[in-house]
Amino acid sequence: MKDNKNKECTVRFEPSGLKAEVSSGTTLLEAAHRAGIYLSSICGGEGYCGKCKVIINQGQFYSRPSSPLLTSEETREKVVLACQTKVLSDLTVTVPKSHSLETSQVLMDTDARVFSRLAGKTQERLFEYDPLIRKLCAEMSPPTVVDHTADHERLYAAIRKQLDAPIMQTGFRILQKLSKVLREDNYKAAVTVGQRGGTTEVIEVEPWRRCKTNFAVAVDLGTTTVVAHLIDLTTAKTVDTEATYNSQMNFGEDYIRRIIYAEQTNSFDQLQESLVHDVNDLIMTMAVRQRIDLQDITAVICAGNTAMIHFLLNLDPTRIRREPYVASAGSVPPIRAAEAGVQINRRGLLYCLPSVAAYIGSDILAGVLTTGIYTKEKLSIFVDIGTNGEIVLGNKDWLICASSSAGPAFEGSGVKCGMRAGPGAIESLNIINGDKIQFKTIGDSHPIGVCGSGLLDALSELFVNGIIDRTGRLKATGDPRLTEGNDGLQFQLVAPQNGYREIAITQADIDNLIRSKAGIFAAIRILMNSTQTKPEDIDTIYVAGGFGNFLNVQRAVIIGMLPDIPPAKMQFVGNTSIAGAKTVLLSRKALETAERIAESMTYFDLMSNPDYMDEFVKAKLLPHTDLSLFPSARNLKRQALS
Amino acid sequence: MKDNKNKECTVRFEPSGLKAEVSSGTTLLEAAHRAGIYLSSICGGEGYCGKCKVIINQGQFYSRPSSPLLTSEETREKVVLACQTKVLSDLTVTVPKSHSLETSQVLMDTDARVFSRLAGKTQERLFEYDPLIRKLCAEMSPPTVVDHTADHERLYAAIRKQLDAPIMQTGFRILQKLSKVLREDNYKAAVTVGQRGGTTEVIEVEPWRRCKTNFAVAVDLGTTTVVAHLIDLTTAKTVDTEATYNSQMNFGEDYIRRIIYAEQTNSFDQLQESLVHDVNDLIMTMAVRQRIDLQDITAVICAGNTAMIHFLLNLDPTRIRREPYVASAGSVPPIRAAEAGVQINRRGLLYCLPSVAAYIGSDILAGVLTTGIYTKEKLSIFVDIGTNGEIVLGNKDWLICASSSAGPAFEGSGVKCGMRAGPGAIESLNIINGDKIQFKTIGDSHPIGVCGSGLLDALSELFVNGIIDRTGRLKATGDPRLTEGNDGLQFQLVAPQNGYREIAITQADIDNLIRSKAGIFAAIRILMNSTQTKPEDIDTIYVAGGFGNFLNVQRAVIIGMLPDIPPAKMQFVGNTSIAGAKTVLLSRKALETAERIAESMTYFDLMSNPDYMDEFVKAKLLPHTDLSLFPSARNLKRQALS
Repeated sequence: MKDNKNKECTVRFEPSGLKAEVSSGTTLLEAAHRAGIYLSSICGGEGYCGKCKVIINQGQFYSRPSSPLLTSEETREKVVLACQTKVLSDLTVTVPKSHSLETSQVLMDTDARVFSRLAGKTQERLFEYDPLIRKLCAEMSPPTVVDHTADHERLYAAIRKQLDAPIMQTGFRILQKLSKVLREDNYKAAVTVGQRGGTTEVIEVEPWRRCKTNFAVAVDLGTTTVVAHLIDLTTAKTVDTEATYNSQMNFGEDYIRRIIYAEQTNSFDQLQESLVHDVNDLIMTMAVRQRIDLQDITAVICAGNTAMIHFLLNLDPTRIRREPYVASAGSVPPIRAAEAGVQINRRGLLYCLPSVAAYIGSDILAGVLTTGIYTKEKLSIFVDIGTNGEIVLGNKDWLICASSSAGPAFEGSGVKCGMRAGPGAIESLNIINGDKIQFKTIGDSHPIGVCGSGLLDALSELFVNGIIDRTGRLKATGDPRLTEGNDGLQFQLVAPQNGYREIAITQADIDNLIRSKAGIFAAIRILMNSTQTKPEDIDTIYVAGGFGNFLNVQRAVIIGMLPDIPPAKMQFVGNTSIAGAKTVLLSRKALETAERIAESMTYFDLMSNPDYMDEFVKAKLLPHTDLSLFPSARNLKRQALS
Repeated sequence: MKDNKNKECTVRFEPSGLKAEVSSGTTLLEAAHRAGIYLSSICGGEGYCGKCKVIINQGQFYSRPSSPLLTSEETREKVVLACQTKVLSDLTVTVPKSHSLETSQVLMDTDARVFSRLAGKTQERLFEYDPLIRKLCAEMSPPTVVDHTADHERLYAAIRKQLDAPIMQTGFRILQKLSKVLREDNYKAAVTVGQRGGTTEVIEVEPWRRCKTNFAVAVDLGTTTVVAHLIDLTTAKTVDTEATYNSQMNFGEDYIRRIIYAEQTNSFDQLQESLVHDVNDLIMTMAVRQRIDLQDITAVICAGNTAMIHFLLNLDPTRIRREPYVASAGSVPPIRAAEAGVQINRRGLLYCLPSVAAYIGSDILAGVLTTGIYTKEKLSIFVDIGTNGEIVLGNKDWLICASSSAGPAFEGSGVKCGMRAGPGAIESLNIINGDKIQFKTIGDSHPIGVCGSGLLDALSELFVNGIIDRTGRLKATGDPRLTEGNDGLQFQLVAPQNGYREIAITQADIDNLIRSKAGIFAAIRILMNSTQTKPEDIDTIYVAGGFGNFLNVQRAVIIGMLPDIPPAKMQFVGNTSIAGAKTVLLSRKALETAERIAESMTYFDLMSNPDYMDEFVKAKLLPHTDLSLFPSARNLKRQALS
């Protein structure tokens, strides 16, 4: 192999046929770059992301004997990590299809679209573009005999020309390298600054060429689902989205059970790791897809319920479940993302939106911020239906909130054919002429389950069409779709076909969904009663949650989940948790506003309210025990049955 | 040795005879504590400070086979580290004298006394007690069903009751343990808060019992000497002081040479380490003496010339010596002391006072702050005589400053019998009746050298008594004390006696001292001339420097170092560098003021001024070429010679 030293080798990449001439010893990753081939590589050639796999067809190469990132089967088939493989002779290499940009972004971008609609308005009206983290292209005049300002002060002056930053701070490591970096491009530099409380921190100073790209990730940390959006901070556009189930599901369906699990097994670290792993996975997936270096992601901003934020940062969550239900922290200061194990730029920041109380998290605050109910003269209700159902009632003068443990039924969890809003999920459903079921799936693919909006439709349509009674019981109508399945009595929504399984809703599913809606309605009633609010006082009801692309809010009235007000006054606002996180990410003013709102909201503890259970029981009928509360639902039902 | 397990053993400590009964396996450090014996231990029994040495007289013990902290001779003599030694049988142990509190604090507290005089005034007039770092005893009411404020926000509210802290920040690690610590004493806690720029950081939250003690160290980082004062932050009193030569002397006498050395050998790390080592040594010495745990020292504040601050933090100092003479940073943000290797509380902060320019460091700013010349209507001059001579001229409206490379002669360096102001140093000297030499030493011990104030006296007295001429040349008067020594012509000040060496001043010493004084006077002249300031416009000249306990400022006029103004208008203010550091340490307002002054001072570059060399040459006679500038000196000389 001595002879190969410094030899010129030709590397040919299949199927494109592109070639590169390189010296022996060059890595395949480098060779691919020279040939103009894009290979995924998140770690930048460090050999730990395992993304740059290629297959050697023929020729000599040197690769590390074994890597945990390659299976023994892959090794047998000459799959190698391009960054860890050196060219020793002419080579032919196959680039697997996985490297090409994936286009199956069916959901690209449900939430993002909703956001751009909302945030468009929000930004125009309330917040101007002034992100928490920025990469500035700073140009300074070099020092002279008459201007011997120190480098550090010179940099501050340049930053302050572009940014309102009365109080600034610089990390020690940045200071140590500052003089060298500034001189690299004769006092032109790429400067990353981030807001930390009232201080603007110089997070990174890099050569001028690094000025161009700056990305951040907004994350909604749901108990059941974790959603992430990748935002180009220079354009304020959402460039990609990704979602996954929360891996903590393995430790309990709701977060109270997870806290108990962590306490009993002292596995807080494990719960943190599993959540951080989800976040990292989402970030990496989007980064690969968009060909973005993790170093160019300089911030992550999270909204979520209080327990999730505690798990993410490994703060003590144990008091959340114990009277008097106290969080370790409501407003969490920004920290270095790396401190929590979140893999972005190693000096990048991790922000969390402030929460209001142990059971009113920053996801709710995000909703208040996004819908702008805190700015309105008239009263609004904000309802977020996730694993819990949180309600906010108020206007610009006051805001009152409560949390009902609705359960994750409307997130598709604990429901036989439930699923989160993704390709193949039934997102809307109608029963035509009291018989034929018509539905639409996300991505228009074959139905594989039902997401929140579909479940709401199903419950409403079963009720309106008399398939279930007011208690939710499936009626023995002789309909052949009503059968006794493995999970008890069930009603078939979609017959099995072409190897796809049957989709059905069981009696237990229906009971679950009714419990959820009853919990939410009871909470709304308590808040309205305690503030003497009548349905006609409500200007708008905003409904948030990961239901799907849209929600037929009128059906939420039919089943008695929401008060009976005209459909025009109801608005489905999608995932406001992530929308709020993005709003804050893009505006320092919005963060200040969020903190002010968090301080001013009044939390109403339903558990200690004797009327709550009473209201809950009354709400367990469809639409409600007191039908006078739902005049329009009564009419609709009459029409359907006529 | 199995039989020894859990056996009760008696450990007797000599010479006190105190005893402790302990189980076998107990450490000697623990046994000493039980016997009521104080053993120095900085590291808290971790085995790395080497302070808890004792001698085993008899009995069985187990000690780590070898420790780098023990010499082989010590090991032979059964010297052990008490914290690393386990009792295996009845033992007799001798506690060396070094553990008793040292009382030889001769210099306790030259500078501190000067400071308390100055700071007393300063504080009354300008700054109220409001230290940069505080340990608050925070009492919170525990959460209830009606008050479920999160722990973090509850803590902030408690802090804000005691402190003006609009913007706060909490370290991530603190946040993670917060809930646990607060519950330990039912929401009473010791909270350490430190100012970092505009933000008040919660640095530590500890159990209530830790509320009592809080110390800080102020350091003057001189090129030649490093001085440290230990301050009890709860009383604002200086409790100990310590000084040492700067170990960087090994790399060059002045800092320009050290920068060149570091560049040539790429040994910036080494220079930092050596300076940090000095600081740590001073801190540890005082901590041992005052029986203070390093954990209870929560801040270090440094003033020094710009190069020293750069060396301390390993900032790039190389541009300081190159035109246009630019520092990496003037105002250095507070960092965690541990980041720079300074060993105090592991979350404690390291502050540096801001500097003005590459050659006007924070030591000078400290002087301006301490003397209050920036507040006065009338003009003052501030002169700091250290390794360089820095001059500030101005009043409340403007401040102009310059630096002359005076050399370290008046710090006792580069002078044969020179020494820093310490026990045995001649601090004042008179020639009685033109013949007999009378002197006073610090601590009234046998003279072993001459410190700055003594050297100034010597130069002045040799001149006034005609032993040297106006050029500084030793005159061949036939005086038997005038001899040719190993270092050339010299004049004996103190004859050898009882084994103590002779103390003499050489021709080279005199030339050195004259060069220093000429540099300083020339700089003052340039600043005065450029601002059309006449001697009669000067209200006060403040003279700072580590001369000794006091300085006969009139003699500084006789030799022509300072302008000829009435003695009543001159004031020796001691080490204002450390005084300023302490002022800032004790007042957040003072730090703000210091930063404002640093920004407003105008630096005057003497090197680029063609008149400077001319003035320097004229100042090389005693007192000056132009005798009309020194009318009083002429009178004095006439008296002395009459």
